[in-house]
Amino acid sequence: MMEKFKSCGLTTHMDGAGNVCGRFGDPDKPAILIGSHLDSVPAGGMFDGTLGVIAGLECIRVIQENNIDVNCPIEIIGTSEEEGRFGGMLGAQALSGHLTLDWLEKARDPKGEYLKDALEKCGLNIHETLRARRDPSSMKAFLELHIEQGPVLENSHKCIGVVDGISGVFKWLVKLKGKADHAGTAPMDMRSDAFMGLADFAHEISRIIDEEGTDKSRLTIGRVDLKPGYAHTIPGEAHFTIVGRDMQEDIMHQLANSCRKVLSSIARKHKLYFEYEQMSWLEPKYFSPEVVDLIEEEVKALDYSYMKMPSGAGHDIQFFTDLTPTGLIFIPSVGGVSHAPDEWSHWDDVEKGTQVLLNTLLRLAR
Amino acid sequence: MMEKFKSCGLTTHMDGAGNVCGRFGDPDKPAILIGSHLDSVPAGGMFDGTLGVIAGLECIRVIQENNIDVNCPIEIIGTSEEEGRFGGMLGAQALSGHLTLDWLEKARDPKGEYLKDALEKCGLNIHETLRARRDPSSMKAFLELHIEQGPVLENSHKCIGVVDGISGVFKWLVKLKGKADHAGTAPMDMRSDAFMGLADFAHEISRIIDEEGTDKSRLTIGRVDLKPGYAHTIPGEAHFTIVGRDMQEDIMHQLANSCRKVLSSIARKHKLYFEYEQMSWLEPKYFSPEVVDLIEEEVKALDYSYMKMPSGAGHDIQFFTDLTPTGLIFIPSVGGVSHAPDEWSHWDDVEKGTQVLLNTLLRLAR
Repeated sequence: MMEKFKSCGLTTHMDGAGNVCGRFGDPDKPAILIGSHLDSVPAGGMFDGTLGVIAGLECIRVIQENNIDVNCPIEIIGTSEEEGRFGGMLGAQALSGHLTLDWLEKARDPKGEYLKDALEKCGLNIHETLRARRDPSSMKAFLELHIEQGPVLENSHKCIGVVDGISGVFKWLVKLKGKADHAGTAPMDMRSDAFMGLADFAHEISRIIDEEGTDKSRLTIGRVDLKPGYAHTIPGEAHFTIVGRDMQEDIMHQLANSCRKVLSSIARKHKLYFEYEQMSWLEPKYFSPEVVDLIEEEVKALDYSYMKMPSGAGHDIQFFTDLTPTGLIFIPSVGGVSHAPDEWSHWDDVEKGTQVLLNTLLRLAR
Repeated sequence: MMEKFKSCGLTTHMDGAGNVCGRFGDPDKPAILIGSHLDSVPAGGMFDGTLGVIAGLECIRVIQENNIDVNCPIEIIGTSEEEGRFGGMLGAQALSGHLTLDWLEKARDPKGEYLKDALEKCGLNIHETLRARRDPSSMKAFLELHIEQGPVLENSHKCIGVVDGISGVFKWLVKLKGKADHAGTAPMDMRSDAFMGLADFAHEISRIIDEEGTDKSRLTIGRVDLKPGYAHTIPGEAHFTIVGRDMQEDIMHQLANSCRKVLSSIARKHKLYFEYEQMSWLEPKYFSPEVVDLIEEEVKALDYSYMKMPSGAGHDIQFFTDLTPTGLIFIPSVGGVSHAPDEWSHWDDVEKGTQVLLNTLLRLAR
C-alpha cells in the first residue's frame, strides 16, 4: 500500500500503530482524512475495509489527473487491526486518542498472546502506538466508504447507503438456573427446565421489539451453553448472550428494561433463578448532519438510488465523531455476505460509491 | 457383597460379567431372582441400585430367621455396570442374553477405553461375559426394588410405587440450518436465525404434549449447540437433541410425528433447512400384569399409601420382561434427587419397600 501511495506522489509513512498514511498537499494544514482498514478476518473477503482505502487513493488520482484545485491537504489512511483481534480497533483508536497505556499493556488475543508482543513482532511498540494520536485541530473531516456487510441495500434495490450513524449496542450475559433432573423421571409439570425458560424468552423477542423498539432495533441470542448439556438430562442452567442494538439510546434502555422484565416473569413461571451481567453498553454514534446532508445532495445530483440508514456494525470512523465532521457511505454487499470468501460487491456499485466519495470530498475541499 | 452373601450361608459366585450372585436353596431348580445393581455414577448416592441388593438379602435373612418354607430357590444378584459407562447395562444384558460378541469387542467408554480392556483389568473377559447368560427356564420370576429417582411419589405423598412398566424412549438429533449473519447488519425480518427456530419449537412442546400425549409423556431438549456460537453473530445452525417418552408406543409415534410436523412448519417460517436423525427408539416395556397385581394386593394388605406408575428411567429388570414374570417396586427419593451425593430415601420408606418385596417374594415362592 505504501508503494502505491508513493507511486502516486503522496507523502507516505507508517505510524506507530501500524496505520499506513499517504498525504496529498501541505504537510501542516488541517487535512481531510479518508480512512478505512487494510486488515480482514481469517478467510474474509477482499472488499471489507480495503475498498475504502483504494477508493480514497482513486479520488487523489482523479484530482491529480484533472488538476483539480483543492484548498486543503487530503490524507488516505489504511488503518491497522480494525477487526479486533485484541478487542478494539487499534489503528483508529490510536489515531483518535482512544487508547491508554494500561489497556495496551494488558490487551491479549483469544489465544492469550499479548498485543504488546504482537506489536514487537511487527517492529512496533505500545509507546509508539500512543504517539500515533492526531490532534483534532489537524483534521478537517473524516470520510469513509465501506461495504454494507448486510442485506438491506440489495433487498431495497438501492446503490448507495447514506449512513447517519452507528447503532448503540449492549451485550448481556444471562444465567437462568433451575434444576438438572432425569429427563425420564421428572414429569413435565415438576421441572425447573432452564432451557425452556430461555426458549420462552426467545419467543418473546419479536413482541419486545414490536412494543418497545423500532425498525432499527435488533435483539440477538448468539451463544447458548446448557449445563450439564446431556440429551437425557433436563438442563439445570442456561447461560446465554443477548446483544441489543438501536439508533436511539432511550430505545436501547426500553429494550433492555423489557428484556429484564420478561426474563423475570419467565423465571418465576419456570421456577428459575435469573441473573445477568451487562458486559458492555455503547451509545449510538451520529455522523455530522451537515456531512450527511452533503453526501445526500451529491447522491441526488448523481441520480443514484439511495437510502439513509444506520450502520449496525462498527467502523473506524466511529472514533472520530466527537473530533471532526464525519460521513460514512455504504455500497451493497451481494447477498449481504461479508467476513467470508464469497463477499462481493458489483464493480458498478464500487464505481458509484467512489464517485460519491470523490464528490463529497471535493465539496469539503473547495 | 460376596462376603455378606457367604456369611448368610448363600451359595456365592461372581459370574463372567461381574455380576455377584448369592443363592438360597436348590442349585438346579428354577429360582426367583431378586436383582439390582451395585455400581453407581461418579459422585452418586448410596441408594441407587444397592438398595435392591441389600433388600433382597434382608428378605433371605427374614426367611432364614423365621424358618419360612419356600418352594423354590431364591437368588440375589448384584448386577455390574448398570450405569452404562459403555452404553448398555452390561450385567443385566449378560444374564438375559442381550449381548453379542461383536458389541463386546467394539464397545468403548466416552474416553475411548475398550470394554474388553476394562474387563481384563478386573480379571474378566468378553467370552466369560457371554457365558453369564441364564437360560429363561432357570428363572421363576425377577423382582427389583429401586428408589424412584424422581419427585412423583414424594409430591403425591405416597410410600410405594407399583411400577407397571418402563417408558419407551426415542432420541433424535436435530439440525436446523439457516444463515450466520452479523447481529448488527441483518434486520430482524431478513434473518434465517436457527436458534429462533429452535426456540419456537421448544415453545410448542407443551402444546404437542397437550394435544398428542398423556400425563406420562415427556419431551426434553437437553443438549444445544449453536454454530458459530458467537454473541455478535446470528446462529447459522442449531444442533439439538429431543428425547421423547411415553408408556404407549402409539403415543410415542404421535409425539414424534407432531415434533416433525412442527419443526417442518417452523423451518419454513424461519427460512431454515431441517433434518433429523433418529438415534434410538426403544419401545415401552411392561411388567407382568399378574406380578403387578400381586404387588398391589400386598401393598393394600399392608395398608401402605401407593400409586401405580411407570418408570421413566431404565432398570436392570427391563431386560427380563420377555423371559420371566417381572415386578418392580419404587420407594420415594427425597426431593426427587438421584445421581448426586444428597440422594436420600427415608429409612421408614426403605423398610416399607423391603416389606413389600418380601411379601411379594413369599407369595411367588409358596
